[in-house]
Amino acid sequence: MTERFLVVNGPNLNLLGKREPEVYGSTTLAEIEELVSQRATQLGVGVDFAQYNGEGELIDALHSADSNHAGVILNPGAYTHYSYALADAIAAISVPVVEVHLSNIHGREHFRRRSVTARSAAGVVAGFGSLGYVLALEALASRFS
Amino acid sequence: MTERFLVVNGPNLNLLGKREPEVYGSTTLAEIEELVSQRATQLGVGVDFAQYNGEGELIDALHSADSNHAGVILNPGAYTHYSYALADAIAAISVPVVEVHLSNIHGREHFRRRSVTARSAAGVVAGFGSLGYVLALEALASRFS
Amino acid sequence: MTERFLVVNGPNLNLLGKREPEVYGSTTLAEIEELVSQRATQLGVGVDFAQYNGEGELIDALHSADSNHAGVILNPGAYTHYSYALADAIAAISVPVVEVHLSNIHGREHFRRRSVTARSAAGVVAGFGSLGYVLALEALASRFS
Amino acid sequence: MTERFLVVNGPNLNLLGKREPEVYGSTTLAEIEELVSQRATQLGVGVDFAQYNGEGELIDALHSADSNHAGVILNPGAYTHYSYALADAIAAISVPVVEVHLSNIHGREHFRRRSVTARSAAGVVAGFGSLGYVLALEALASRFS
Amino acid sequence: MTERFLVVNGPNLNLLGKREPEVYGSTTLAEIEELVSQRATQLGVGVDFAQYNGEGELIDALHSADSNHAGVILNPGAYTHYSYALADAIAAISVPVVEVHLSNIHGREHFRRRSVTARSAAGVVAGFGSLGYVLALEALASRFS
Amino acid sequence: MTERFLVVNGPNLNLLGKREPEVYGSTTLAEIEELVSQRATQLGVGVDFAQYNGEGELIDALHSADSNHAGVILNPGAYTHYSYALADAIAAISVPVVEVHLSNIHGREHFRRRSVTARSAAGVVAGFGSLGYVLALEALASRFS
Amino acid sequence: MTERFLVVNGPNLNLLGKREPEVYGSTTLAEIEELVSQRATQLGVGVDFAQYNGEGELIDALHSADSNHAGVILNPGAYTHYSYALADAIAAISVPVVEVHLSNIHGREHFRRRSVTARSAAGVVAGFGSLGYVLALEALASRFS
Amino acid sequence: MTERFLVVNGPNLNLLGKREPEVYGSTTLAEIEELVSQRATQLGVGVDFAQYNGEGELIDALHSADSNHAGVILNPGAYTHYSYALADAIAAISVPVVEVHLSNIHGREHFRRRSVTARSAAGVVAGFGSLGYVLALEALASRFS
Amino acid sequence: MTERFLVVNGPNLNLLGKREPEVYGSTTLAEIEELVSQRATQLGVGVDFAQYNGEGELIDALHSADSNHAGVILNPGAYTHYSYALADAIAAISVPVVEVHLSNIHGREHFRRRSVTARSAAGVVAGFGSLGYVLALEALASRFS
Amino acid sequence: MTERFLVVNGPNLNLLGKREPEVYGSTTLAEIEELVSQRATQLGVGVDFAQYNGEGELIDALHSADSNHAGVILNPGAYTHYSYALADAIAAISVPVVEVHLSNIHGREHFRRRSVTARSAAGVVAGFGSLGYVLALEALASRFS
Amino acid sequence: MTERFLVVNGPNLNLLGKREPEVYGSTTLAEIEELVSQRATQLGVGVDFAQYNGEGELIDALHSADSNHAGVILNPGAYTHYSYALADAIAAISVPVVEVHLSNIHGREHFRRRSVTARSAAGVVAGFGSLGYVLALEALASRFS
Amino acid sequence: MTERFLVVNGPNLNLLGKREPEVYGSTTLAEIEELVSQRATQLGVGVDFAQYNGEGELIDALHSADSNHAGVILNPGAYTHYSYALADAIAAISVPVVEVHLSNIHGREHFRRRSVTARSAAGVVAGFGSLGYVLALEALASRFS
Repeated sequence: MTERFLVVNGPNLNLLGKREPEVYGSTTLAEIEELVSQRATQLGVGVDFAQYNGEGELIDALHSADSNHAGVILNPGAYTHYSYALADAIAAISVPVVEVHLSNIHGREHFRRRSVTARSAAGVVAGFGSLGYVLALEALASRFS
Repeated sequence: MTERFLVVNGPNLNLLGKREPEVYGSTTLAEIEELVSQRATQLGVGVDFAQYNGEGELIDALHSADSNHAGVILNPGAYTHYSYALADAIAAISVPVVEVHLSNIHGREHFRRRSVTARSAAGVVAGFGSLGYVLALEALASRFS
Repeated sequence: MTERFLVVNGPNLNLLGKREPEVYGSTTLAEIEELVSQRATQLGVGVDFAQYNGEGELIDALHSADSNHAGVILNPGAYTHYSYALADAIAAISVPVVEVHLSNIHGREHFRRRSVTARSAAGVVAGFGSLGYVLALEALASRFS
Repeated sequence: MTERFLVVNGPNLNLLGKREPEVYGSTTLAEIEELVSQRATQLGVGVDFAQYNGEGELIDALHSADSNHAGVILNPGAYTHYSYALADAIAAISVPVVEVHLSNIHGREHFRRRSVTARSAAGVVAGFGSLGYVLALEALASRFS
Repeated sequence: MTERFLVVNGPNLNLLGKREPEVYGSTTLAEIEELVSQRATQLGVGVDFAQYNGEGELIDALHSADSNHAGVILNPGAYTHYSYALADAIAAISVPVVEVHLSNIHGREHFRRRSVTARSAAGVVAGFGSLGYVLALEALASRFS
Repeated sequence: MTERFLVVNGPNLNLLGKREPEVYGSTTLAEIEELVSQRATQLGVGVDFAQYNGEGELIDALHSADSNHAGVILNPGAYTHYSYALADAIAAISVPVVEVHLSNIHGREHFRRRSVTARSAAGVVAGFGSLGYVLALEALASRFS
Repeated sequence: MTERFLVVNGPNLNLLGKREPEVYGSTTLAEIEELVSQRATQLGVGVDFAQYNGEGELIDALHSADSNHAGVILNPGAYTHYSYALADAIAAISVPVVEVHLSNIHGREHFRRRSVTARSAAGVVAGFGSLGYVLALEALASRFS
Repeated sequence: MTERFLVVNGPNLNLLGKREPEVYGSTTLAEIEELVSQRATQLGVGVDFAQYNGEGELIDALHSADSNHAGVILNPGAYTHYSYALADAIAAISVPVVEVHLSNIHGREHFRRRSVTARSAAGVVAGFGSLGYVLALEALASRFS
Repeated sequence: MTERFLVVNGPNLNLLGKREPEVYGSTTLAEIEELVSQRATQLGVGVDFAQYNGEGELIDALHSADSNHAGVILNPGAYTHYSYALADAIAAISVPVVEVHLSNIHGREHFRRRSVTARSAAGVVAGFGSLGYVLALEALASRFS
Repeated sequence: MTERFLVVNGPNLNLLGKREPEVYGSTTLAEIEELVSQRATQLGVGVDFAQYNGEGELIDALHSADSNHAGVILNPGAYTHYSYALADAIAAISVPVVEVHLSNIHGREHFRRRSVTARSAAGVVAGFGSLGYVLALEALASRFS
Repeated sequence: MTERFLVVNGPNLNLLGKREPEVYGSTTLAEIEELVSQRATQLGVGVDFAQYNGEGELIDALHSADSNHAGVILNPGAYTHYSYALADAIAAISVPVVEVHLSNIHGREHFRRRSVTARSAAGVVAGFGSLGYVLALEALASRFS
Repeated sequence: MTERFLVVNGPNLNLLGKREPEVYGSTTLAEIEELVSQRATQLGVGVDFAQYNGEGELIDALHSADSNHAGVILNPGAYTHYSYALADAIAAISVPVVEVHLSNIHGREHFRRRSVTARSAAGVVAGFGSLGYVLALEALASRFS
């Protein structure tokens, strides 16, 4: 049986490719999801995708993934920096959550250098653009190989 | 006429009993609500229950309680520590809000020791597990006896 | 063709006139919207109104305004002080956003003196009560005259 | 055999009813103790009362309670905010200590929002005036019922 | 009788149009004053203008305006961020003072995000360039219409 | 009838004249008390003297002075910098308390520049050595002349 | 030969009696100067008076007093809290400077609790209203008796 | 003539062996005192022992030791971290004071890493359990050999 | 021609497998290097390995890699948290540097949550144990495919 | 044509040689100006001198130098540490400003280690006494050689 | 078989006796090592000595001691205050490390009061000059007696 | 006999001219050394040059210079901001050390504005590029002329 993973993106990431392209690049979220799908096929695993701007919806998605997925790839967007509720959700579920950031948060504005959500994550990948999601998928998949 | 109170729980509390039981115990939210219901019957008051993961929904619930309930028992979960919007909602309504925490927040990680929502609350009960909800109900009920 | 602007209010502002009137005055949100409508008519521009308690809904509204409006007047309520996600949404869209506060946030409690959302705003108007929305409308309209 | 609990109040609480009544109310310490005694009778438990202005005396009282009482209700007064020695005493004894505050410390001056003594307490009740002592007694008594 | 208002600019604003035009624009102070004069004529109010680099002179000007003007439009320049003496002067006089900033101070260097003078101001307008002075004039004039 | 004042000194002040004379001078506490007595006689008021090293004893002394004296001159010694319990005692009593420091605390080590007890005091005199007690007595006596 | 002292007041103190009387009282600066003059006559010393809103003028006055007066009584107003230049002037001159505050700065807003000018002062008197100037004069005069 | 030293322990150290043995070990205070006595005999010096929970009593003990002992071994317990009064007492007396901690305070909770009392001590020994008292005695004794 | 990458480990990483295995796992550095070598062979790229405890040696290695390698995988060990010199070296060279951490630094002690070296890195991978080096290699290799 | 430079000194520097000579040396300002004049003659450039205690006057001087001088040597005295207005003036003018300090500000009191004015300066010379002004002149002159 | 211990000194300690003798005394490092050797002979244990100015060399020495010595006496010099790499080395090895400081670091400049290396040490001895090394040796030796 | 000075550069300065030329310029370290040599010849003094990336080597160089040179010109690179060990080395030697920075550190990133090494330096020259080394040499040479 193949493992299924959830790739969930947080606030404003639906605007990828359009939003501040000098920071976040010109790749759209759909293109990233296509890239991840292709790699998933190579790895023989399944992937589902979701994107929410609301903190509550993201928490709901994590809770739901606990029953339906073998792991989560999460880009919490700006919630990274203050959402203890999202951090609690990551800690509350049993499946591993890998946190991904498109840009290298350590080299940006001061408030972006801190991740409160990463405290409960299994690992973090930051600064590799869309490739980061692929690396995260490999990290999750390697747990089941 | 009997008074009715709203017991509303915040993010991740729907996972009670399953989430980090070494911190939050093995009692489920349903069991807590049953416990509160029993005590409400003894006290001759009514109780309604709700749980939301979203900040906006919790604010909506508080606004609505202002017309429909005589008081609110609120466990804001992780929003306790940063949701000034929730704190404003508590201040904005006229009925008293009692804040409850299952664990003793003063003895946990640094960020959990601060409650921004409690600023506007009528009182706080923390560290008594599910019994805290019962104590909060007694405190509210005593205002009408 | 006339320009249309979106006036969007954040958490607890639906309670205006009722909530802490000694701080926020006795004017209701409907009365403010009426005042803005009248001025819009004088200026020959259109206005739409919205109010949300949820952070995600406010972000959605800003995203949507990017296609449908020539500018946004935003009172982020308490999200002003911690919602980096809302700040990112303001930065992510192309139309100008003017931040309005009813009270003078610089003269209130310590945490209210900081605006994280204003970082990406076109400008800020604070302390003039409902008149602030009208001034913000004039500022936006002047961009198209 | 009935359980006995110690209710011990810290600095300046002997002046209750007289000291800043707009903050602490007009109830005297004797009246609070009478209220607690009545509830103790209903619950079938015993209570002893003490009040000290000195940090050392409060520590002595906690040490002594470890042998003579089944639990302690402690209002540390201003020591709440800086007495690590009292916090150590709470941690050093085996019987549970419930911390009580008449006012809601989270809504007062900045330095009063922090409790260093609560770190080692079993739980905290704050903001309910004299009722808080009764709630604390119930919480302690429920451990033996 | 027409109301008269004082428009007073602080340190370095005499260099407007020449000083860091990428931040402050190429409009000169004389051009701003002309713009405000035109709007004053439309509104049927009087305006006087002044500019000082010294903290003491600005305080003197505010004291003097208390007897001679119905309100003050003040751009405190860099004194915004540390002059408690100027803040005291604003609080000491009876006529309303509206604080204006050409740039959006919330989006600039860290020390520029804090306004100590705004604490005592009637309101703040920031980020609209020279238009900000006009909006401030309207806000003041509306008090007398 | 003549007014009586209490002059109470805190920890380590019994060692005056011996302890770090380069900071505190070579005058002994007995000599200071003699100086104050002489001035009291001139002013036609009475004075009592006390010195305690314990925080609890100082609080007791303040409580007792509330019934027996018309005012208190207090040198809280090192408790100045952290004893919120002593600060509460000053606030709790009705008679005025004047805080005296032998040295100019603003010019010493960082932690000595802050006085938490002075928050509730009627006034503060610092830096004049033993003369400070005399000035404090005059300030108190002037309230009754 | 009689000693002469300079009494110099800083920014906004010319408005005494009119400015925020609930904080600073209704006594005018002229009345305070009259009070000090009377006491000077009793003590057989001379006094000169000055008031400046500018930091530079206050520094000039202190420099000049070094040659012309035997000591200075200085109320630095809001400069107390940030003027290191004034602090340097106090340290630079040889005659003693006594710092006076009408209100008890330790019990006011956070930024007012710190005095950077007091570091170099001979002593500080705060919280006694106009009487504070008289006490300061006595302290200075006692150096020459 | 043999030198005599005072070994004085602060708050909660009377509970040693019983209090949090995983941190402080199972050795009782009596056993530590016995160990020190034996070593004192070997070294040919005398030792006296005391333990107080009160800050005032500890200060009294230090004052008294100044006349009666050649040095002091002090474990200030939790007062280590905030008692400036105790620090002043150590500075006020002439005989050397060696501060001892059973546990390595640098490796514990954040607030325990700071010693305000050690500022005035002759030296500090931490982390060696009961052996620390013996090392401190040797250090003191070596001054007289 | 195949690309060659440098894998360089910082202080104490030579002890991997032996040092605090509950934090860092039981895999040795040699085993990690073997793992990376195998993956390099699959990817058709070359890898060199180095480990230094000294800050200067690590800087030398980065400088040298600028001429000899197409990219660097760097685990700076504890230098991550304070070595601005190493951060400058990363910024000074032209080839990309990927920072790797075995553990999830965001979930560890406070000082470990900050990376000063990551500011200049191309990206960061943390929390995946030895797999992290492999992911970093893929990220570097993908730049040349 | 020879270049002319302005050497301008800030508050209290008129007292040089007299003011705290153990910190600032016994050289007077006139002697420094003489030293600079001699070196200017050697270098074939002109120098003008000014000294002001007021912040506004210093800003005026910098503005004026923009038209009349080829560069400025500025010792801002204590304004170094808090005058953002002076910093803005340095940034606002086109001619280079070299900041000079007689003492090594990095080795003095904490508040003196920060220079807010230096942010906009061309360079800084500190710790060489009067020689510093000469070095600054050489640095400026070298721009025109 | 006798135990061997390593005594290793950090940066600048090779200059002992010459470097700031008013702080560090006039004893040279060779004299300290002689003192320790004599005591080692008395105790029947062996000692080796080393001194390095480099952080990497000190880490190497600790690693090497893990195989060759039964314990380490380490004076990390200024690395005490910021070398997390050295702290990690102490934690990484199995033999106990006792940290020694010649001076009482708690009574010196602010940055010297914090020891990051002591977190992982077995214990700390500070303030006893060269005697501190002897006490540390006794503490280590007592583990094997 | 001519004086000899040591010019020693710290980490990454060997890459000058290549490393971030927009910040550090395109002059190489060899060119700077040539410039200094020429000026040394004019001044009739000798110069030696060194550059190290390691903290320990820089400390060694300073120690060695104490015997072999009449003064040191030191650019500590990034060690400026955190190397207390280097600061101690500067304080430990008798010959004067002048700290040089190519860029104006006060106008760069926050962490670069603080120099811990400058505390012990004789003086600091910053912001003049390679000319700074020449000015430093003149300052040192002037001590022997």
